[in-house]
Amino acid sequence: MKITILTLFPELFAPYITTSIIKKAVLQSYVVIECINIRDFTLDKHQRVDDTPFGGGAGLVMKAQPIMDAIDHVRQANSHVIYLTPVAPVYTQSKAKELSHYEHLILLCGHYEGIDERVLSMVDDVISIGDYILTGGEVAAMVVMDSIIRLIPGVISSQSIVSESFEEHLLEYPQYTRPEEVRGLRVPEVLISGHHANIEAYRQQQSLLKTMKYRPDLLKKAKLSEKDKKFIQKMVNDVEK
Amino acid sequence: MKITILTLFPELFAPYITTSIIKKAVLQSYVVIECINIRDFTLDKHQRVDDTPFGGGAGLVMKAQPIMDAIDHVRQANSHVIYLTPVAPVYTQSKAKELSHYEHLILLCGHYEGIDERVLSMVDDVISIGDYILTGGEVAAMVVMDSIIRLIPGVISSQSIVSESFEEHLLEYPQYTRPEEVRGLRVPEVLISGHHANIEAYRQQQSLLKTMKYRPDLLKKAKLSEKDKKFIQKMVNDVEK
Repeated sequence: MKITILTLFPELFAPYITTSIIKKAVLQSYVVIECINIRDFTLDKHQRVDDTPFGGGAGLVMKAQPIMDAIDHVRQANSHVIYLTPVAPVYTQSKAKELSHYEHLILLCGHYEGIDERVLSMVDDVISIGDYILTGGEVAAMVVMDSIIRLIPGVISSQSIVSESFEEHLLEYPQYTRPEEVRGLRVPEVLISGHHANIEAYRQQQSLLKTMKYRPDLLKKAKLSEKDKKFIQKMVNDVEK
Repeated sequence: MKITILTLFPELFAPYITTSIIKKAVLQSYVVIECINIRDFTLDKHQRVDDTPFGGGAGLVMKAQPIMDAIDHVRQANSHVIYLTPVAPVYTQSKAKELSHYEHLILLCGHYEGIDERVLSMVDDVISIGDYILTGGEVAAMVVMDSIIRLIPGVISSQSIVSESFEEHLLEYPQYTRPEEVRGLRVPEVLISGHHANIEAYRQQQSLLKTMKYRPDLLKKAKLSEKDKKFIQKMVNDVEK
């Protein structure tokens, strides 16, 4: 996979590409990451990338021409052009999976008050990473890249991916590591019992509890066994008592 | 405001802190940002920060002791300790506003398969930036910082904040800037008419259209005028014809 980032701030991505799992994915050629500065496509001597909005209003809008020329410069037949913007459907793990199958993603980062709407005529997809406002699309692009690159087969252990949050529409169970006691807090005894069926049952219940606590909306989408449903009903009854 | 980031990868934050709006906010002392390496709080000579999970399973879990000691080191009476994790309520613009009033935020970034659950006894708040999995909490911390810092009074124009997406539970209207024509695409005539009431009505309709297209779920929360409701009904009728 190749990922091209179109941005006014390519320097933001440098350490991200050379750290931890993303660094490994790049070094082992699972992904090629390219950062292109939109400012390099300006035609005036001041390299102006923004201007005041037509119709008035606060802030500055990124001009269409440098962005459109930048897209033309990097786009191939197999490219998928994505604009990061709050004016879009909200990103999810299933969208990350879908995007992980593309050969070439172009991530367009807006800044300031957004980009000239006419650029959208060249965009295949719009993504919002959540219901909040950022100073620009750069951190949103990092979120999208991060979530996709780790799904490329080989980048991380496939077992890690199977057992994680959202895969079954349940949040992940708590994890513990050595030592058995930290500041007077002990690891739950079942986890050091060696009894695999009990450990599995405990973890499933913890997943259900975490999901009930933080994301009850997800439970409606989750595939629950009869045992899961009984456990949830018991918890609800206990709270009502 | 002060923001302390606890991470295994402090180098990831360096360019982010020295670029664009966040750079300005730091230079003008609206915010102090401090990055602390959790690894500096390990006690063994190998500086080991992770270990295999109790009860078995894939991946590595971050050990409790270095993180707990790091929190002890930076926490003050006015600190609010936040752990970035998918096992949490989903972050929103109203949460960003709430957090922008704190004096000291401590953002704890997990990595690998997460952190030892016992650390949560020292955490005040858990935040998920969305329903997707990242390689670590670092980009999530950037998202949270970015959304909060821009809300600190003085960092960006307050007019920009009032007219943006999610403020009224509507997505923002499209923006255009010069020239009037780009690659055969013209700016909508109303925006160059100089007729302010018409421009305002046009923008409101465009906000409604974008929200209907991408986020119909938000319309239920939005405060709509009778005129807005009539416009939506008309659009729905047109589609059904």
